[in-house]
This record gives sequence, structure tokens and C-alpha cells, in this order.
Amino acid sequence: MTETAMVTVDFEIDEELPPSQLIYTFGGHAPVMSLRPGTLLTTSTRDCFAGLVRSTSDLPSMVCDPRFLNPQTGPFYIEGAEPGDTVAVHFVSIEPRYTWGVSTTVPLFGALTGSRDTALLHPPLPELTWIYDLDREDRLVHYQALDSDLRVPLPLDPMHGTVGVAPPLGEVRSSLTPGSWGGNMDTPEMRAGATCYLGVNVEGALLSFGDGHARQGEGETCGVAVECAMDSVIIVDLIKGSDTPWPRIETDDYLMTTGSAKPLEDAFRIAHTEMVRWLMELLELSEMDAYQLLSQTALSPVANVCDTVYTMVCKVPKRHLRELSTAYSGKHGELRSLAKAWAS
Amino acid sequence: MTETAMVTVDFEIDEELPPSQLIYTFGGHAPVMSLRPGTLLTTSTRDCFAGLVRSTSDLPSMVCDPRFLNPQTGPFYIEGAEPGDTVAVHFVSIEPRYTWGVSTTVPLFGALTGSRDTALLHPPLPELTWIYDLDREDRLVHYQALDSDLRVPLPLDPMHGTVGVAPPLGEVRSSLTPGSWGGNMDTPEMRAGATCYLGVNVEGALLSFGDGHARQGEGETCGVAVECAMDSVIIVDLIKGSDTPWPRIETDDYLMTTGSAKPLEDAFRIAHTEMVRWLMELLELSEMDAYQLLSQTALSPVANVCDTVYTMVCKVPKRHLRELSTAYSGKHGELRSLAKAWAS
Amino acid sequence: MTETAMVTVDFEIDEELPPSQLIYTFGGHAPVMSLRPGTLLTTSTRDCFAGLVRSTSDLPSMVCDPRFLNPQTGPFYIEGAEPGDTVAVHFVSIEPRYTWGVSTTVPLFGALTGSRDTALLHPPLPELTWIYDLDREDRLVHYQALDSDLRVPLPLDPMHGTVGVAPPLGEVRSSLTPGSWGGNMDTPEMRAGATCYLGVNVEGALLSFGDGHARQGEGETCGVAVECAMDSVIIVDLIKGSDTPWPRIETDDYLMTTGSAKPLEDAFRIAHTEMVRWLMELLELSEMDAYQLLSQTALSPVANVCDTVYTMVCKVPKRHLRELSTAYSGKHGELRSLAKAWAS
Amino acid sequence: MTETAMVTVDFEIDEELPPSQLIYTFGGHAPVMSLRPGTLLTTSTRDCFAGLVRSTSDLPSMVCDPRFLNPQTGPFYIEGAEPGDTVAVHFVSIEPRYTWGVSTTVPLFGALTGSRDTALLHPPLPELTWIYDLDREDRLVHYQALDSDLRVPLPLDPMHGTVGVAPPLGEVRSSLTPGSWGGNMDTPEMRAGATCYLGVNVEGALLSFGDGHARQGEGETCGVAVECAMDSVIIVDLIKGSDTPWPRIETDDYLMTTGSAKPLEDAFRIAHTEMVRWLMELLELSEMDAYQLLSQTALSPVANVCDTVYTMVCKVPKRHLRELSTAYSGKHGELRSLAKAWAS
Repeated sequence: MTETAMVTVDFEIDEELPPSQLIYTFGGHAPVMSLRPGTLLTTSTRDCFAGLVRSTSDLPSMVCDPRFLNPQTGPFYIEGAEPGDTVAVHFVSIEPRYTWGVSTTVPLFGALTGSRDTALLHPPLPELTWIYDLDREDRLVHYQALDSDLRVPLPLDPMHGTVGVAPPLGEVRSSLTPGSWGGNMDTPEMRAGATCYLGVNVEGALLSFGDGHARQGEGETCGVAVECAMDSVIIVDLIKGSDTPWPRIETDDYLMTTGSAKPLEDAFRIAHTEMVRWLMELLELSEMDAYQLLSQTALSPVANVCDTVYTMVCKVPKRHLRELSTAYSGKHGELRSLAKAWAS
Repeated sequence: MTETAMVTVDFEIDEELPPSQLIYTFGGHAPVMSLRPGTLLTTSTRDCFAGLVRSTSDLPSMVCDPRFLNPQTGPFYIEGAEPGDTVAVHFVSIEPRYTWGVSTTVPLFGALTGSRDTALLHPPLPELTWIYDLDREDRLVHYQALDSDLRVPLPLDPMHGTVGVAPPLGEVRSSLTPGSWGGNMDTPEMRAGATCYLGVNVEGALLSFGDGHARQGEGETCGVAVECAMDSVIIVDLIKGSDTPWPRIETDDYLMTTGSAKPLEDAFRIAHTEMVRWLMELLELSEMDAYQLLSQTALSPVANVCDTVYTMVCKVPKRHLRELSTAYSGKHGELRSLAKAWAS
Repeated sequence: MTETAMVTVDFEIDEELPPSQLIYTFGGHAPVMSLRPGTLLTTSTRDCFAGLVRSTSDLPSMVCDPRFLNPQTGPFYIEGAEPGDTVAVHFVSIEPRYTWGVSTTVPLFGALTGSRDTALLHPPLPELTWIYDLDREDRLVHYQALDSDLRVPLPLDPMHGTVGVAPPLGEVRSSLTPGSWGGNMDTPEMRAGATCYLGVNVEGALLSFGDGHARQGEGETCGVAVECAMDSVIIVDLIKGSDTPWPRIETDDYLMTTGSAKPLEDAFRIAHTEMVRWLMELLELSEMDAYQLLSQTALSPVANVCDTVYTMVCKVPKRHLRELSTAYSGKHGELRSLAKAWAS
Repeated sequence: MTETAMVTVDFEIDEELPPSQLIYTFGGHAPVMSLRPGTLLTTSTRDCFAGLVRSTSDLPSMVCDPRFLNPQTGPFYIEGAEPGDTVAVHFVSIEPRYTWGVSTTVPLFGALTGSRDTALLHPPLPELTWIYDLDREDRLVHYQALDSDLRVPLPLDPMHGTVGVAPPLGEVRSSLTPGSWGGNMDTPEMRAGATCYLGVNVEGALLSFGDGHARQGEGETCGVAVECAMDSVIIVDLIKGSDTPWPRIETDDYLMTTGSAKPLEDAFRIAHTEMVRWLMELLELSEMDAYQLLSQTALSPVANVCDTVYTMVCKVPKRHLRELSTAYSGKHGELRSLAKAWAS
């Protein structure tokens, strides 16, 4: 595939569509568009509240229908994708569509509260909304306290909380849930410049994404990041005959594996066994040698500790591993070059 | 306290002492020395195997007595320390004593194996030993695969896995365990330049530390880092009338809280509620405002997922929080200056 | 509804259908039949392997397609059922269809092995098949050891591992998974004489059930009970305007709530908060008084510790609570009488 | 040992001793008395609040010092006990000393509340005290609601929440904690007629017990049972050369293993792997055959889901296993006969 051969496609979302007509699941919907591998797609995503929470007096439980949270753009049918293949999604650019973002607390949702699963007798914490000014020029996100005058400018660091394909076993899963198919992983690593690898479970893969965050802390502790609509550009590609059991991410600097499960140590175990296997393959190491090398080199940041299951990332710096074969035959580098060519 | 007033004390450990005569608990032992707050202490620590695992043919289960693992230097009696106070330990320098480090797997220990608590029917994974060359001049740690020729130079990044005081409730706890008293937290953040804050539970606090690592990955996945004896310099200080429920760490760049518990999400919850409270205090924020700010700014790296309980770190960048009051009345900055003065 | 008014319907399953044509999800399929509330249904269910594992030389990984495990009978459309209502399923009779049952181990499945989520580096435990003779007359299930001559007659205690309705949020869930919609709860309490209450999420509820067990231990420790095809008789009824957030079970002797989640303490928390709320309602107690009463009276048996999430039961003896209002206006007693009338 | 040879010893506790002078740890204290194996001991235990909570207006946080909760009777030095041996404690009789018991809620303690480890931002649940009338003649425990007139007579079912020996690794553990040494397991199975087997970690074993409950639900959900002082009679015996890694219980009807850990599934895993091993030994089964048999026969009741770690019980009915060798060479039967002889 050469730069000149790259197909560029635009998929415009209709911001007038009411929340009830958007897509909230992975699987279960007919594709909105078919894409050839290698296509560059420009599109946008609506925020997790479908734009309904716009001021500090809008509370999610008042203005949103709980059935209609976290709408996704897609699903896209990837031509030629079959179970056993891997879809590569390279994030070329992720830019806030507007000059504001929003965060809230949500009753019985978040890491530091009783929840639907961690069911306790406490009444819910207060439900509150914070509005953030987004300064796209200076790349800042402005936190404003509700109960004091404190205002803190934070770096803008846009990313997608949700990216995934249709799940296996004929399941249809809510966009609030992460799993082996991707979904609501909520890791800040899913920013522009990253390539996400997703194993294909059904013909055409049925890729969707959304849940833009102007930034988030690791863990997404209160359950809600700085949510905003995004204008995003991705390149979608296909790796035939290579499976990816759990989502992986590659950047210029890091190889990353993810795992989503509860308790959180199980998410850690998944991500880290996946990395042991990846290092075995890329460095031709025995299992125990890979386990040892990972033990001394891995970074292990939390992605989310608030969703229906939690997500961990295992992150190995490429600079330590000069003997590393390129992953997926160099797919990340190839897509990175295409992205740079397109941008220039 | 002024630089000239700083007392400098040396506590030499006897490397000839057999493992059976070393200290393996927090609490339960008479102090080896009494220190005035503000004292700079030069000392050393033995490696977690008390030096018995020295070649790839030494297996822990063969050469070590399971009762004698992870010896500590101390306990030191801190003059004037009482329950309700906080001990501040500033790590001035942590340097490998020798030119080698060692890592192993240990039967039924580590994150990716059945264990004593995660009791399964699998036979243990293989027990193996890796020896690392430590190049102190070039600041490198050399990984050498056992089953192939792969050799990987990794950055030297020395730290102490274990630092703590006597626990509350009259308990005596093994140095293999982390908890509210500190202990075996195994976070790579405990490196030179960091100040660790520990709440005092008994008169004199009874501070000990050890478990030097030439480096470790987050999670200490296989259960064993690049273990080595250390020459360490610390400054010990006392903050009267200020309690610290769970260990905290401060560096020039970060405020950090820790939590140690199982499941791993409970360790996350402890560390992150502690940080909510710390931000409330330092920024005069309401609880919900602090929860929100943390949610968009925290880094949440794992410390260990192998010990008897697991440890998480919550890490907030100071550069984002210019309005922050200094923690513990500026104790970290003060100790940092003393350390620099001593070093020059 | 009176006994004479009870509609009796037979739904015959076609045992010649190949596994690929059976139903393996809750949600996602058109109903096979519509039932009026109060209908007595005679039907049967295929075993969890769709009959493919018949001798000790049949291993699931050899003879089964992993996409086709745990087929369900249904879904049945319950006339008039809408979100906010509760379906009551009374098990009139559950009888093994044949004179044999089967259990196996399955690679990376079960409570005492690494698994897909508790991802470890161990190779799987051996995959083995045990065949049980079922003596329906003497009500015995005969265990036969594979590696010795030991033969143990155990009481026949037939039950359904799986019973549920379509899930909320447009999800379609595998029949291998339990949750708020019921599904693969795998509790031995789901035997003849019990009434199961399930909250309705979609119009018509879409009730299915299956996974017959000639008996099982609590926890279903190895992941597989004494699996067998069943001839079952149920009465299906509808309670309008009364929601049931998590499945409940009532017998002549016990009120039971269930919760399905990981870690196992979350399943416990769900089941026990649900029981606190049920006791508040039935005994007109304050929340704290109900919490206290439950704390001194609940039995808390495990259902399963092997499925994708785990299930706990909270079980309160009715004999202790003579002042108890009847649950769901006496629905269990009503269905029990109908069942007795039908049987005689 | 013959009945006539049985030594009978009385250890009277001084009810006038203030709480600060009682024993609150396993390990860390000199023995109060030395016992020859086979000794029948009559003694008593104070309630978990050392008698300070006596009316509904006494709240633990007001009247108790948090350092002085759950006092133990002991430690008793068992003559001849060495690491590698097992102490057998047969409960001959456990009788409430007075006609009242007490339960409370305690801030941040219990299964359905945020806690010290499950650290959340909720304020604590209300702290309340319930007083129970104990009717020893009619064997009833009278629950009285605080916020209504409901009064419920429940069966008296006295037991000890805490029984244990000194822990391994030189640790001293609070009596609030359960573990491999026993301690605060809080299982209702520890009633008269049961024999508890505990592995010895230090010379003389250093047996203690306490925490009498007039009854408790499984899980001890709110964290506090119907607490009362007890008059208890035990026979202490020693099994040389036989180790017991985790506490076991035997009654006339059941073999039981226990495990204490977090998350709760780890407690389940410990108890059930221990039972697999016990069945292998007693029935001369292979590991996989024992795993299978356990999977179809085990009862798996929760003990506690409130203490610092949680406790599960695995319970196998002896009546199913007629070919079973007697455990510990018939120690339970022997002690049972002695107890009957003494009683008559």
C-alpha cells in the first residue's frame, strides 16, 4: 500500500439525531459503512452524554436516559476481516470539536463509591457537574472548582475512551463495558499517534469508537473524564491470519497490552501474560526468560477502576529492547508514515 | 535545624552475621540505635536472600531457609516519636554495594502463578535464577536470558522495596508484607531524592528498611526484582502532631499516596481516597472538588502484585498544582536541601 | 387464576438438531413460543454439551465447538410482560431424561485452575471425563473414580443451572454467564419446588432455561456438575408492576436472593443488600434493623465460583420470621398449590 | 489415653481485669498455663467488647478503646507441641455466661459498608447497639428491632468466633484477624461437638480462644454477631508429626476445611484445595478424581465477610463417603467419646 493509494473517506455524524437513535453497543447493529483496509477515515464522535450535559446545573440522572449513554460512531465493516484476523486502528488525530468539556459524578458509579456491583447500604455520593473550558490553541483544559475559586489549567491530552469490535459468542455488549473486544477501556494511552490492535470475532469486524476525553487521570477515578465531542481521523487496516486475544496498543515508544476483568489483579494478570507471550514472540525468548525480562521492565498503569470491569495496561519501552522484531510486521510504523504523509 | 547542625551517624551492618541472626519483622525487636530527628544516617542493607543466591545454580528453595527472607536494617528508635506523629525518611543516596544483582522465580510466589492464597491445583512454575551484572559507572543493569543469548542493558534505577515502622495493635509483621506501617511496598518510586512519610504507631517509631533493588518493573511481576545489597544514606526526621494513615512519598515533582490491600482495587481505593484528602488539605478544596481534580490528574502505577497484599501508588504532578500549599510544612524541600548540602 | 383455568402447553425440543442450530444466548433470538401467564409448560432441555460428551474418552475440547456450549430451551415470550414487571418461574418437576450424566474438567475453566481471566503461566490441568450412572428409582447418582475403583452413590438432586430472561441495555449475553437477568447462576437451590423471580427487561421477557444437573456441589468447583438432559415442568407467571433487580428464589422454607459478580465478595454484597431490602419490605423494618436481623439469620452458600462472574445466594429461613408478609403477594404458595393440583 | 486418665483443669478468668490488661493477639505473650495433651479445660471467655457494651445507649466507639477489642483466653502452652504437629481442640460445651448478648454496627466495619480497606468517600453508616435476651432454658436468642416493635425469637446456637495458635514467621497477629493459624474465623461451625485442628508454628503452640457468639448468620454480615461471654469446656490434644496447613474442623457429620484471604474467591480456593488434598489422602484418590468428587459433594458456606481477611468453609458430608478412612487416625471420635464420658 502506498500513500497515493490511500483511500480517504469521510463519515459525517448527524448531531441532530436524538440520543435514542444512536448506537450504544458493540455488535447487534448493521454497519453504517464499509471500509477497505488502508482507508483513512475522517469522522467525529459525540460526547458520552450525547451532548445533553452542558452546564453545572445539568445532572446526568436528570437530563439523560440511562439506556442512552456513551454513543459510538460506527460500526464500520472492514472488508475482508474474518475471525482470526486483527484490525489495526491508527489514531491520526483526535481534536475536541468544541471549546468545552464536561465531567460529573454519577450516583453509584466510580472507584471511590459503592456501586451496582460493590453493593453497599450507603446513600449515593452527591451528583455534580463540572464544566471545563478547552483552550485548543494553548492546549489547556481548565478545571474550575465548584465550592471555591480554584482554577487549574491542565494539559490538553485528547483520547478515545472506547474503541472496539463486535464481541465473540454472538454477544452484544454495552458501550459502557470493556473486554477482549475492546470497548470502554478508558486508557489515556489511546491518543493520537497510537495504533490499537483488535482481534476480529465476526466477519467484517464491525469497528466502532467514541467516548472522547479532553484528558483523564489513570483510573478515571470518579468514573467520568473531561468528556467532549471529538473530530477524529483514523487509518483502519487489517492484518490477515494473526489473532490478538486482548487489545494491544503500539506507539513509537511503547508496546502495550491490556486486560479487562475484576478483580483488578485479574486485569493485571491478563495484560501481563499477554505481554509475556508478545515478548516471547518478538525476542524469541523462552516463557520464563520473557517473564523475567517483563518483571524488570514493565510499566503497569491503571486504565479504569470504574467501569463494569476494570482495565490495566502493561507497557514495555521499546528503547530497552533494541533486538525486538517489529510487531505485526511493522504495521505501526507503516501507518505512522501514512499518517505523516497525509498530515503534510 | 540548619545544615551545620545536622548529625551524621554511621550504622555498619555485619555481613558475616548468618541469616538466622538478622531481623525479619516490623515490630518485635529492640532498637539497634537511637537517632535524633534530623540525623543523616549512612548504612547498608543486605539483599533479600541475605546474600545466599549468587549464581544461576543457586535456587532459593535450596539455599535459603523460608523463615529468613528479606532481612532489614534497623530498627532505629526515633527520639521523641509518639503515636500520632509522622516520621519522614529522605533517601539521599541508594547505591548497589556490589557489581551483581540477582532475580529468581520462587515456587508459588509471583503475579502470574498460583500462590499460597490464590491456591490452585497446578504444580509450581520452574524455579530459576538470573544473575545481573551491575555497571555502576554507566548506570546499567545487564539482563542475560537463560535459554538464549539475549542480553539487554537496562537503566540502573536503585530503590528500596521495604521501609517501615512498627505496626499498630501490638502486631509484629513479616518484612514480606506491606501495610499501613509501610513494609514491603516494592514501589520503584522509593529511590534517591524521595521522602517517605510514615505514621508512628509505637513510641520511637522503630524504623527499618532493606530489600534493595537495582531496578524493578511496576508490579514486580515475577515476585523478585534485581535484588542487591545497598549502601544507603538517609535523613530521618520527625513531624510532631501530624498523622499519616498510610505511607506517602514526595519528590520534587510528585505527591504520592500508597495503599496496600487485596483485591488490588482496594489498594487503589486506599491510595486514591488518601490523595483526595491530601488535596483537600493542600488546596483547601471540598471533598467532591478534590475527587474531581484527582480524577483528571492522577497517575496510578502499580507497585507490587506479588506480595501477601498488593500495593498501589497514586501520583499527582506538582507542576499542575501551582496553588498547592507545601506538604508537611515543606519538609521534603528542607530535607532535599540538607541532602544537597551534605553531598557537596 | 384458578386451577381449572391453568393452561397446559407442551414444547417439544428436537434432539436431532445439530448443536450449531441451538440457542446459546439470553436475548438476541425471536421467541419460539408465546405463553400466557399461569401456563404450565412441559418441555425438556439438552445437556450443556448438547449430548456430545457420552463416554470417558469424549473430551469437550475434542468433540465440542466452543461456540456451542450450554444450549437453552426457549426463549418463551410471556404475554403482557414489560420492563418493571417480574416473571415468576415455578419448577414443578425436573427429571433426568436418561440414565446417565457426565462431568468433565475443561482446560482453563473451574475454580482451582488458572483461567481466561485469572490468566497465569501454568499449563492447563488435565482434561478428563467422568460418566455417572443415574438411578432414578433409587434417586442415586453414581460417582466412579477414573484412577481407582472407588464408587460412591450420591443423592440425586436435579436442578437447572441456567434460567433467565433477555438482559437490559440491548445486550445479548452468552448462556455461560450469570447476571441480573439470571442466566448461568449454577445454584443447587434451583430445584423442583422452587419459584424463581426474574425482573423483566424487554417486552415479553424472553424466558429461557437449561443446563440440567443431576446434582452439583456448591461452587461447582471444577466448573462442571453432573450434566444431563432433563424433562422439566414449569409454571410461568407474571407479577405486574413489581420489579426484581436481581434474581430471587422462594421455597416453602426459604427466601433467597442472589448476586453475580467478581470478586466473590461483590456477589455476596449484592445478594445481601437485596435481602436487607426484602426484609425491610416484608417485615416493615428500618434499614439498620433489617441489616442486623439478616446478620444473625442469613445462610450464605456459594452458587458458582467458576463462571465468567461468580454467584452467591443469601438464604433466610421463613420459620424464623413468623411475622413475615408473604412475598410477591403469596405468588409462591399459589404456584405451589397449582403444581400439586396438576401432579395429583 | 483412657477416660479415667483424662486430666481436668480449670482456668478461671478474672472478670474484674480492665480491658487494657487482657490479651488481644495470637503470639507475643507468655503462656498463662501449660496443658498436657488430653487435658479437659473448663474456662470462660469475655465478650468481644470486654463487657463494656451493655445497653442500646452504649456505642463501641464511645465506650471501647480500639486497641482493646476481642480479648482472648490463653495462651495455653501445649506440652510437646512443635512445628509440624497439629493441635486438636474439641469443644465439649459452649454456654452463654449471662442472659444477655449484644450486637452493634461499627463505623467502617462490616460487609455492606465502605471500610478501612474498601476505602470510599461515604460517611459511615449509623452506629447502633442491639441487646438480645438469651433464654438458655428454651434455647432462644431474642432479636428486638430498634425502630419498631418487631421481636423475633431465634435459636440459640453458641460458638466461638476466634480460636488459634501463634502464627509462623515470628509474627504477632491481632485477634481481629483470621489466617492459617486460626484466629478470628467467625464460622458458626465452631460449636460444641466440633473438633478444630490447628497446625503448630511455635513450640507449645500457644492456643487461645474467645469471641463467643450466642448465634451468628453466615458471613457475620454487619461485622458483629450476638456477642456474649461464654463458659466453655474444651479438650486439648496433640497429633504429633502431622501438619495442618489451614484450620480444619470435624464433626460427627462433616469434614471441613477453611481458608482465610481476600478476595473471597481466594478464601474459597484455599479451603477447596485443602479439601481436595484431604479427600486424596482419606479415600486414596488421585488429585483429579478428588477434585471431581469434591465438585459434586461440597457445601461451601461463607464464614465471615467482614474481618481483615474473609473466611470460607468447605464442608463434605461424611455420610456420602462410607469408604473414608478416619481423619487424624480417629481423633475426633476419640475426643467425642471422652467428652460424652465426662458429661455423664
